[in-house]
Amino acid sequence: MTKGCLIGVGTGPGDPQLVTRRAWALVESAEVIAYPAPDTGTSFARSIMADAISQHAIEIPMIVPMRPGRAPAQSIYDAAAETIAGHLAAGQDVVVLCEGDPLFYGSFMYLLVRLRDSYPVQIVPGVTSLSACAAAQARPLVARSDVLSVLPGTMDDDQLAAAIGAADAVAIMKVGRHMPRLRALLQRLGLVGSALYTSHASLPHEQALPLAEAPDEAPYFSMILIYKGDDPWIS
Amino acid sequence: MTKGCLIGVGTGPGDPQLVTRRAWALVESAEVIAYPAPDTGTSFARSIMADAISQHAIEIPMIVPMRPGRAPAQSIYDAAAETIAGHLAAGQDVVVLCEGDPLFYGSFMYLLVRLRDSYPVQIVPGVTSLSACAAAQARPLVARSDVLSVLPGTMDDDQLAAAIGAADAVAIMKVGRHMPRLRALLQRLGLVGSALYTSHASLPHEQALPLAEAPDEAPYFSMILIYKGDDPWIS
Repeated sequence: MTKGCLIGVGTGPGDPQLVTRRAWALVESAEVIAYPAPDTGTSFARSIMADAISQHAIEIPMIVPMRPGRAPAQSIYDAAAETIAGHLAAGQDVVVLCEGDPLFYGSFMYLLVRLRDSYPVQIVPGVTSLSACAAAQARPLVARSDVLSVLPGTMDDDQLAAAIGAADAVAIMKVGRHMPRLRALLQRLGLVGSALYTSHASLPHEQALPLAEAPDEAPYFSMILIYKGDDPWIS
Repeated sequence: MTKGCLIGVGTGPGDPQLVTRRAWALVESAEVIAYPAPDTGTSFARSIMADAISQHAIEIPMIVPMRPGRAPAQSIYDAAAETIAGHLAAGQDVVVLCEGDPLFYGSFMYLLVRLRDSYPVQIVPGVTSLSACAAAQARPLVARSDVLSVLPGTMDDDQLAAAIGAADAVAIMKVGRHMPRLRALLQRLGLVGSALYTSHASLPHEQALPLAEAPDEAPYFSMILIYKGDDPWIS
């Protein structure tokens, strides 16, 4: 029997209109669909694709407790990979929904590493939160021969300052509870005026503000973009 | 009269199926479409969207001589912005096609900076070449709390070595004629075994190879991805 294919599909940043044509079509025809889901509430990835999912599809929610800053227990992915492998071995393709892009800070890698040696794999890239935040601000992320560094907000101040110093453009991901510290650091570095804050990019409740006007209480999925050049679009 | 909106639309990396639903719909209904085009040959951005463009659309090719490594003359964008402004002032929206994502190393910024103070702007983010190259290799670009640095291949060896040393994951863009030098540098740094080469990601003639097997003659639009971690997906 021909094995099924593990298909990692990027759902983009949140707006269902920012899903690629291929991702939408694959989900519309998918017979087996897996996605990460919180222990309470709805799956964000599933909600983006809700209008494409067939009533007859088998759904595999992977319950991943959301504890910002901590990687979930590997046993969750062991179990999900085993369930998915059952379908793949039976010849069924399995579409795995991944917020943003499957290979950009995504949990899809935990399935990929468990299944790639035994089953064919296909990846459908998606629009990242990085691109969505730049779009929300209508300001270039990176230009010409710039160096872009993508940094997690969990890094300590010295590491962040060194990394920011070495780049032309910077994205600080996963801002969340680190917001007051990050803003104070950028103030010390003289970069608050070049920094933008975005949360929930592409969603109805999107916030796109200069960092100076951003709230102290930032959600986990928020981002600070910094452009250090003196280009005319920088205020 | 209501002014028209400047709409920067990401076309994704090349495969028309990797265009977002919004981008496709906007181009289908667009009355005025602008795109970069080489001085000889066809426009890559237009070719991606060809099946969506109406026969009745007004097309504005922006002829940009392709000289790798050199920014084109600003007079080209002055002229294009003036033509586009004519349509915007007359109340017509203008859709500008941008390969990949409009704000990720794109020439769209040259129009944006000229028009944003006078006309409303909307950006539709797209799938970047970065995501497409990772997808072609089916390997994570960046994971957990990694630092990702995106570097132009034009940087000199010392700058590259320092930037690579400070990151967990690296993408070297615009490889082109720098390929032999870049490969030699990565050899010295002991990273050739962790490096992947991709050209023309998502297109029929895509090449996705370990760097060690990549050709010495690389096209301008090719990329080297490096992952320095010891995760099990690294060979």
